[in-house]
Amino acid sequence: MPLTPEQQAEIDRQRAETQPTRRAVAPGLEEILYQAIPVLDHGFVRVIDYMGDDAAVVQAARVSYGKGTKKVNEDRGLIHYLMRHRHTTPFEMCEIKYHVKLPIFVARQWIRHRTANVNEYSARYSILDNEFYVPAPENLAVQSSTNRQGRGDMLAPNEAARVLYLLKRDAETAYRGYVEMLNEDDAGKPIDPKRTGLARELARMNLSLNFYTQWYWKTDLHNLLNFLSLRADAHAQYEIRVYAEAMIATLEKWVPITAEAFRQHRLGGAHLSASALAVVTKLLAGEKVTQESSGLSKREWTELMELLGKDS
Amino acid sequence: MPLTPEQQAEIDRQRAETQPTRRAVAPGLEEILYQAIPVLDHGFVRVIDYMGDDAAVVQAARVSYGKGTKKVNEDRGLIHYLMRHRHTTPFEMCEIKYHVKLPIFVARQWIRHRTANVNEYSARYSILDNEFYVPAPENLAVQSSTNRQGRGDMLAPNEAARVLYLLKRDAETAYRGYVEMLNEDDAGKPIDPKRTGLARELARMNLSLNFYTQWYWKTDLHNLLNFLSLRADAHAQYEIRVYAEAMIATLEKWVPITAEAFRQHRLGGAHLSASALAVVTKLLAGEKVTQESSGLSKREWTELMELLGKDS
Amino acid sequence: MPLTPEQQAEIDRQRAETQPTRRAVAPGLEEILYQAIPVLDHGFVRVIDYMGDDAAVVQAARVSYGKGTKKVNEDRGLIHYLMRHRHTTPFEMCEIKYHVKLPIFVARQWIRHRTANVNEYSARYSILDNEFYVPAPENLAVQSSTNRQGRGDMLAPNEAARVLYLLKRDAETAYRGYVEMLNEDDAGKPIDPKRTGLARELARMNLSLNFYTQWYWKTDLHNLLNFLSLRADAHAQYEIRVYAEAMIATLEKWVPITAEAFRQHRLGGAHLSASALAVVTKLLAGEKVTQESSGLSKREWTELMELLGKDS
Amino acid sequence: MPLTPEQQAEIDRQRAETQPTRRAVAPGLEEILYQAIPVLDHGFVRVIDYMGDDAAVVQAARVSYGKGTKKVNEDRGLIHYLMRHRHTTPFEMCEIKYHVKLPIFVARQWIRHRTANVNEYSARYSILDNEFYVPAPENLAVQSSTNRQGRGDMLAPNEAARVLYLLKRDAETAYRGYVEMLNEDDAGKPIDPKRTGLARELARMNLSLNFYTQWYWKTDLHNLLNFLSLRADAHAQYEIRVYAEAMIATLEKWVPITAEAFRQHRLGGAHLSASALAVVTKLLAGEKVTQESSGLSKREWTELMELLGKDS
Repeated sequence: MPLTPEQQAEIDRQRAETQPTRRAVAPGLEEILYQAIPVLDHGFVRVIDYMGDDAAVVQAARVSYGKGTKKVNEDRGLIHYLMRHRHTTPFEMCEIKYHVKLPIFVARQWIRHRTANVNEYSARYSILDNEFYVPAPENLAVQSSTNRQGRGDMLAPNEAARVLYLLKRDAETAYRGYVEMLNEDDAGKPIDPKRTGLARELARMNLSLNFYTQWYWKTDLHNLLNFLSLRADAHAQYEIRVYAEAMIATLEKWVPITAEAFRQHRLGGAHLSASALAVVTKLLAGEKVTQESSGLSKREWTELMELLGKDS
Repeated sequence: MPLTPEQQAEIDRQRAETQPTRRAVAPGLEEILYQAIPVLDHGFVRVIDYMGDDAAVVQAARVSYGKGTKKVNEDRGLIHYLMRHRHTTPFEMCEIKYHVKLPIFVARQWIRHRTANVNEYSARYSILDNEFYVPAPENLAVQSSTNRQGRGDMLAPNEAARVLYLLKRDAETAYRGYVEMLNEDDAGKPIDPKRTGLARELARMNLSLNFYTQWYWKTDLHNLLNFLSLRADAHAQYEIRVYAEAMIATLEKWVPITAEAFRQHRLGGAHLSASALAVVTKLLAGEKVTQESSGLSKREWTELMELLGKDS
Repeated sequence: MPLTPEQQAEIDRQRAETQPTRRAVAPGLEEILYQAIPVLDHGFVRVIDYMGDDAAVVQAARVSYGKGTKKVNEDRGLIHYLMRHRHTTPFEMCEIKYHVKLPIFVARQWIRHRTANVNEYSARYSILDNEFYVPAPENLAVQSSTNRQGRGDMLAPNEAARVLYLLKRDAETAYRGYVEMLNEDDAGKPIDPKRTGLARELARMNLSLNFYTQWYWKTDLHNLLNFLSLRADAHAQYEIRVYAEAMIATLEKWVPITAEAFRQHRLGGAHLSASALAVVTKLLAGEKVTQESSGLSKREWTELMELLGKDS
Repeated sequence: MPLTPEQQAEIDRQRAETQPTRRAVAPGLEEILYQAIPVLDHGFVRVIDYMGDDAAVVQAARVSYGKGTKKVNEDRGLIHYLMRHRHTTPFEMCEIKYHVKLPIFVARQWIRHRTANVNEYSARYSILDNEFYVPAPENLAVQSSTNRQGRGDMLAPNEAARVLYLLKRDAETAYRGYVEMLNEDDAGKPIDPKRTGLARELARMNLSLNFYTQWYWKTDLHNLLNFLSLRADAHAQYEIRVYAEAMIATLEKWVPITAEAFRQHRLGGAHLSASALAVVTKLLAGEKVTQESSGLSKREWTELMELLGKDS
């Protein structure tokens, strides 16, 4: 349950109000504005604000005086053209702002995307809630044997049970230590009136990386697509991928044509190296190519054959 | 006259439409949305879109679930506090997009502000209009004798007249050469059917730096304030300062409390060096300080005395 | 002890080698290149590489063909001038790269400085060492009563002892859980051969925020000064301030004139708001001003009086 | 002739000096350090400084204590792996600084790469030389009929002659006007002692976009590769492409392994959209695919067939 009833009520109140605007409006996104989309066991993503729509991309590309759009078909063609040819600046002309609740270890990956604006809940200033991430058993996996930074098969049930036990036990221990050091109750009163309590900026260091934090995160459409293409990728860690997937759902409501072009040219596309391209050209010409003759490493060869739907 | 009747009609059409939105709305800015504010002889600034308002700054600083605002007074206090203590990230949570028409030499200064998104009218793709900047006579000035990168007194009338003549003559010569090289009329047909015409990406190099270009320019509120504090400064070149001033007028309509805090803490404030601070402290303690004993250079001393309203 | 003997030997080996270069060389920084400067209980900062020196700032400001330096005095004057007038781009022409070992909660503050390049040790890929930060008793403090995000007086000795006990106990518990979940010894062999072991990217979430991580961090001189002015400030959290102070020591060895100008114009300087400036001007004119008549808030008034060395 | 004898002498003097350093040294780049590589009729590119080498990429990827390199082969494999999988941060750990002399219209394209540091020669402060770009006759081309922002066939000789005449005539007219308005000789004395002369920041607007400017430009290796992949591309304007090509030559001397991986995975590679990938897979399976059945636009189909070495 990521939200308290009070938080849900605040959101509902904000959703109930509308005002007229002369700006571009994305009706699909308005429908879900402010609503929390649940992610993981206690997290969420919700859209707080946005600027622009598909037409704003077109308008910027044309530096137009009015709406700048022509027929829907021409606009669609232009957006695909821009995406295909890496003309990225028109996509920077749209902006979106999210409120995200996420485990700290996920936040640490996420923040690496630098072209974004962030306001994080401050644990120097406020006390963190007793909420930490514990994976669902089916998401507990062994270290991958082929990819040094990934996971492989599911953990055996008894091992999974032990992991869940340890994660919960240690997080609860950490939180108890945190509260004892702070010596503060919800109303800011000392729990034990004979003690003073440690400064928040120090006590927080006792919490583990699966505790939840939250932030406002704002970025432009181009940088959002970069984020999504990296974090919705099969090689991304599961715990950030689920956030990216929830955000792709918001992308489709916001800028449906851009979302379609993104799937076509980036998510579903593939990059071929010079040697891989030479392999494809030879295969199409009916020549025989082996990994040895291809100039590709074993790993690159395997990946290429998979991409082309061939046995390696 | 910066706009053609067709452009004005497009703008009017866009202004006539409103739609309901759940987002934050800045009523003052809605009033002037899309309208061109004239700057220089053919230029303008107009707001195309925006995200957020004063309350959005507060909301981000508090990472809140709803509107996040408390009493107006508390919000105002928080915004001033954030501005005063250089807590810049909440101001990054608002975004604004302008359409600007400006001389190329002004665009070259402007583009140095890197934390912004830009789509410029492409002279590789399209033909530039015959519009160039010629200063008003009262803005023609001699090279400053005290500041190597500024201007001093007004030019004598006969000299001013000659400058205006040269600027017009040379820009017109340049544009005639441009058109002859392009050999293209407004409809894209050859002017002289026996010739082919030079590629646009080459012909444009004949134009001078006072020709007008235009772009969509988008930035966040924090970076807008940085831009404005540098470009509305008395040391900025007049031709960019007038754009900054027009934009400050839009700032006041968009985020009035932030605009007030900006005037208080940045535009109207001053930075004292360690030595300048020591001078002030001594003066307040009734000690006598001279430039020689102050540790300040002559120039810094003069500037400090002016700032303090004293004779140097 | 931040370094193992093997690590120290690698550093010594690298320090022993020199090669000739035509580039600018900063002799003071060469002397300490690669050496670890200890910070906190297990952390360090060490300079890995640098580009440019004081003369490179001058050279860039002049866009010169050769060294671009004139007399030492003129160079010094120019650097102070640039710093005083916020001409920041010449300082961007120098670059420095650090290797830093730091607690994760410090890394989370540090990473907010976005204009920098970072490569962090990956806990998806590798196993973290059993090293966590425990403050010295004299750095354990209560929550500040005047500043909601700071610390106040030292903790009483018995409370401090309890905090140290809890921090150690909980970190050790967390690390034991981490190792048991990983089920991997130093050589990558299973500790318990009957179990498989959890993927590293998951197990790491059990560690607390005082565990040490490390990264390569590279930035330009202008952005380094921004970092230092914020993080060496008295309001910065002690645990990041000590890193900033160690880095100021490297700054002085690298670019001594810039370091001097930085102390003069930024670290030791102060910013006055429009109202504060008016107060100073009135006081210098012999007028009486009180907080009430000043237009300043109580807090701003108190801070101004402290700055001016007056009783508030 | 891009350099005066005095400038060349300054460069030679700087090249003559070497000092010992403990930093990484790139011997190939040291050889050409400071030397001007001529580009276009009056322009050049020269490397002023650099930080790091191929080994520094590896070292950062491993966050190592010493040199971090293993066998040459392993390092090469790692660099190719990083390039292939878009692990871009280790490449950000190398930095390079160029001094570039270039026509203003080229500078206007170049500056769009925002993740770089720039100090440009100031025409507010100094007087520009009488140097402007005039293309070689073989680079004068008509507007492309297939690509709205490119050039097509060479201009007919008589048209080319007329274009060259116009470009020279108009640039010379512009410069004469500039000098007359400035009323300043090389020594800063008035040409006509009875007149004062216009401020530099105003007079410069009379110059055309083919006049040369110069700047110091510094960026990291990752962003340099982005710049080069866009600007060395066949679709880039010839006048910036020649700069990119000169810089690729410096890249190969600086970081030869990275340069090789860049050619393999980026310059020589290709991106396939989802539909294009489906076409390739079908063709390899022996199915017949036409443009109509492919889901590709005519233009995308033609480009794909060309890429695969097939008739479209």
